[in-house]
Amino acid sequence: MSKKKPLILVTNDDGINAKGLKSLIEIVRSFGDVIVVAPVEGQSGMSNAITVKVPLNLKTITSSNSITKLTSNGTPVDCVKLALNQVVERKPDLLVSGINHGSNSSISVVYSGTMGATIEGSLNGIPSIGFSLLDFAPDADFSVADKYAPKIIENVLQNGLPDYTCLNVNFPAVKLSSIKGIKICRQTKGRWQEEFDKRTDPHNREYYWLTGSFKNYEPDADDTDEWALKNNYVSIVPITVDLTSYTAMNHLKNWKL
Amino acid sequence: MSKKKPLILVTNDDGINAKGLKSLIEIVRSFGDVIVVAPVEGQSGMSNAITVKVPLNLKTITSSNSITKLTSNGTPVDCVKLALNQVVERKPDLLVSGINHGSNSSISVVYSGTMGATIEGSLNGIPSIGFSLLDFAPDADFSVADKYAPKIIENVLQNGLPDYTCLNVNFPAVKLSSIKGIKICRQTKGRWQEEFDKRTDPHNREYYWLTGSFKNYEPDADDTDEWALKNNYVSIVPITVDLTSYTAMNHLKNWKL
Repeated sequence: MSKKKPLILVTNDDGINAKGLKSLIEIVRSFGDVIVVAPVEGQSGMSNAITVKVPLNLKTITSSNSITKLTSNGTPVDCVKLALNQVVERKPDLLVSGINHGSNSSISVVYSGTMGATIEGSLNGIPSIGFSLLDFAPDADFSVADKYAPKIIENVLQNGLPDYTCLNVNFPAVKLSSIKGIKICRQTKGRWQEEFDKRTDPHNREYYWLTGSFKNYEPDADDTDEWALKNNYVSIVPITVDLTSYTAMNHLKNWKL
Repeated sequence: MSKKKPLILVTNDDGINAKGLKSLIEIVRSFGDVIVVAPVEGQSGMSNAITVKVPLNLKTITSSNSITKLTSNGTPVDCVKLALNQVVERKPDLLVSGINHGSNSSISVVYSGTMGATIEGSLNGIPSIGFSLLDFAPDADFSVADKYAPKIIENVLQNGLPDYTCLNVNFPAVKLSSIKGIKICRQTKGRWQEEFDKRTDPHNREYYWLTGSFKNYEPDADDTDEWALKNNYVSIVPITVDLTSYTAMNHLKNWKL
């Protein structure tokens, strides 16, 4: 009895032409049939946003036996929803998102379009992995991902993932030979300290560009993703879609409400 | 010794002119000085999105002794970041977001701009509460919020909230007299089942409007927010910004990586 090849849905937030997406397609095509639905343009920082004010389009770019590529004007989450509802003929066995140009470790998971798409996959019962490289450059070197992503994908295809759970994988931007291995981590406690670059336009109106620097609240905690990445490990943080703080529930039960 | 009046930051995702925002301002103004920084237009479904591709503006609408109102073209999270970095002179004692026109219970917390702003507040160490009413109508009746939101605000101002934690509060859309009380809940497991309304434009191009219906995976679980709301309770779910699935971490430790 022949087993069907796995069906793999690929998306990202840097857009259909990003080098990281091309690298990811190359990585997953040996595992099964590949369908790509990705934003036509970059959608960084779009988190789990969905598009409700404007209609969405969906255009087929290429279609062959083993790879189909489509783009949409929507967010990464819209791309996943469109893919699952309008494109695939059966539920994908795996969703991969990325490879993002830039880190999605620690609190960046909350703002990331790459992880938004990944979370959407897990909500639909699909084992889902978001991949990011700690290098923003459009021509970043994805060799570390080429070597380590297949191991992770293999494990997820074989073992699945717990319900309502996806993976946030980050690769250090170092030479392949410097990588020490893969580490299962928790999300580092930290936040972006925002600074705004305030300017004045030719018509004398003020405007702001969002900039910022990351503040790590626990730089010495060796079970965190930030620590792992700084020490040349590939980090994997399992992410849950149940945002309930169960410890806070007890705290609140003493309130007079 | 006189104590400073609390400083309260108000935002939403339905925009500066929404009735829910006006109701929330009326509710909080008796608790302290109020600064409002809200999107100029509706930003529903924007989640934790931040704006990186276009510059942000920030315009003062009104300013008096006790209330200052500003708008921005940014997302709800952008509004919070701008408020904290460019507007307030000291860290607010409380952030409130809403009152959203429409539910943000269960998995909607993930897509909600109202909750995106609330989460951003908690990341900045500010006790933060997102309020939503289960009624999408622009002229919705906020009487239930008028009665129950002050109790919750009072408790948060008095007791604070645990680090990295905010509150997701939803009000049933029923008569005030039908409300049974307030219930501390966990987030219901469920998801939006998307359907797309596929149309053809005058130039024969296809386009899609996102629609959908909510699927509750555990309709009988009486500790969930969906159950509470269906049974005429105001629901409070404490939300954490640490998305790590600690149970999944153990699961992954058996993998060959």
